[in-house]
Amino acid sequence: MGPDRYKLGFLGPPGSFGEQAALRYDPNATRVPFDNHAEVLKALVADQVERVILPVENSLEGSVMENIDGILREENLSICAEVVLPVEHFLIAAQGTDLRHVKVVMSHPQALGQCRAFLDELEQEQPLQYEPAFSTAGAVAEAVRTPGTAAIGSRRAAELYNGHILAANIADVRNNKTRFVVLDQTDAEPTGDDKTSIAFTTEHDRPGSLIEVLSELPKHGINLTKIESRPSRQELGVYVFLIDFQGHRLDAEVGEALEAVEGHASYFRLLGSYPRFVER
Amino acid sequence: MGPDRYKLGFLGPPGSFGEQAALRYDPNATRVPFDNHAEVLKALVADQVERVILPVENSLEGSVMENIDGILREENLSICAEVVLPVEHFLIAAQGTDLRHVKVVMSHPQALGQCRAFLDELEQEQPLQYEPAFSTAGAVAEAVRTPGTAAIGSRRAAELYNGHILAANIADVRNNKTRFVVLDQTDAEPTGDDKTSIAFTTEHDRPGSLIEVLSELPKHGINLTKIESRPSRQELGVYVFLIDFQGHRLDAEVGEALEAVEGHASYFRLLGSYPRFVER
Repeated sequence: MGPDRYKLGFLGPPGSFGEQAALRYDPNATRVPFDNHAEVLKALVADQVERVILPVENSLEGSVMENIDGILREENLSICAEVVLPVEHFLIAAQGTDLRHVKVVMSHPQALGQCRAFLDELEQEQPLQYEPAFSTAGAVAEAVRTPGTAAIGSRRAAELYNGHILAANIADVRNNKTRFVVLDQTDAEPTGDDKTSIAFTTEHDRPGSLIEVLSELPKHGINLTKIESRPSRQELGVYVFLIDFQGHRLDAEVGEALEAVEGHASYFRLLGSYPRFVER
Repeated sequence: MGPDRYKLGFLGPPGSFGEQAALRYDPNATRVPFDNHAEVLKALVADQVERVILPVENSLEGSVMENIDGILREENLSICAEVVLPVEHFLIAAQGTDLRHVKVVMSHPQALGQCRAFLDELEQEQPLQYEPAFSTAGAVAEAVRTPGTAAIGSRRAAELYNGHILAANIADVRNNKTRFVVLDQTDAEPTGDDKTSIAFTTEHDRPGSLIEVLSELPKHGINLTKIESRPSRQELGVYVFLIDFQGHRLDAEVGEALEAVEGHASYFRLLGSYPRFVER
């Protein structure tokens, strides 16, 4: 471990999708696992780690809304990167296990739910019991020690815990992806292929106030890539809009659009500009 | 059970938030529990039940996106009602249990995660072990049979399984709510206080195409209550926009706006008009 390595917090344990995302983002960082999403964020706020990586869309392990709300609460954090990971499920057991001898399948309830069709088919061949686990990685660690038991988890968990893959890509939905963001005190420098995330609130109950704000973007040639409304915690019926679009806040057109959006909004926060994730 | 009662499918077991929502929607329906969200939807498509109720926002038990995607896949279903339930967590054990004697806390991983602050505080008094469960209701059923074990679940689960409430409202975030929708073959008649949900896709990669569609709503005095973008399954970078707004499709202004939106969109689907949920 070199002296210049910074600490990168993620949702553990080793073998989790959080660790895979951390490795994909920066294999040279010193990875620090935490037990739950709230602790990951808390560690960054308390300066125990320099950066953290958290899932924000379509995650398996716990609620994503929880993370978006967490980011909105921490006014001093910025998004400095994004990582998009394919979610692939594998059925994993101890070396030498035969699929026909599996009696128990364990995993995080959501992972079991996402492999329903595969499990239903397997159950037509042999009776199966299901056991819930806190994480897919923890389930794999336990299954490889327990004869007759298999776990649903990632390829990396199979490698880490020396498990044998009984079946690959067993999720009902293929092409499932999870988007993670990396948080730091500041966002990223322009690269020429960037995205910007903002959050804002518009005037309550006035038809058209959201449209007024949004129409500032195409005026400046900016393409929206994502929009979401979240109920505000302050007042029922007031929504916080979360928007991602192409471009960096230091691009002239983007800067003008942001100024105009801020002028129309009753609350505005720049969450950060960062390089668009590109598959390698 | 009267002969006129229709069957209402929900995510069980009895004591789940799904059952609470079903009771809140219609206490006179014949409730039919299913093991997972996919089976709830399948039962409606296969005519095993007349209606189903499913969480779509901020749920505890499993993925909400899964349900939204499921509704989008089933072209013949409509939203005919919504129900908004407060999510309240209780620590529940066998009658006569003292909080100080609890050694194990079990629940669905997400429910345990949502009561982190309460559990951390309790752990400063006494060592605690955690056990994952497939549902909060199942955890309560098991905990009341197991000395030294408590479960996190709903007040209704405590009643159903004759459990003793050791602590009330223990979630980190108060005011947490889950929104459910009821699905049927047709949507609902106008009541004068209604909402409408639509889904559409706009032209790919043309800045302003979303704004063009959205701006049809305020032109007709319509107020957006929710907007969300979901990656389309067909093509990367294409989004399906999900929008809720006030009014019924049979209202003249809403009808005109819907026609205009459909004219601008490359894909359009009316998910249904239904009475706005009002707290009683």
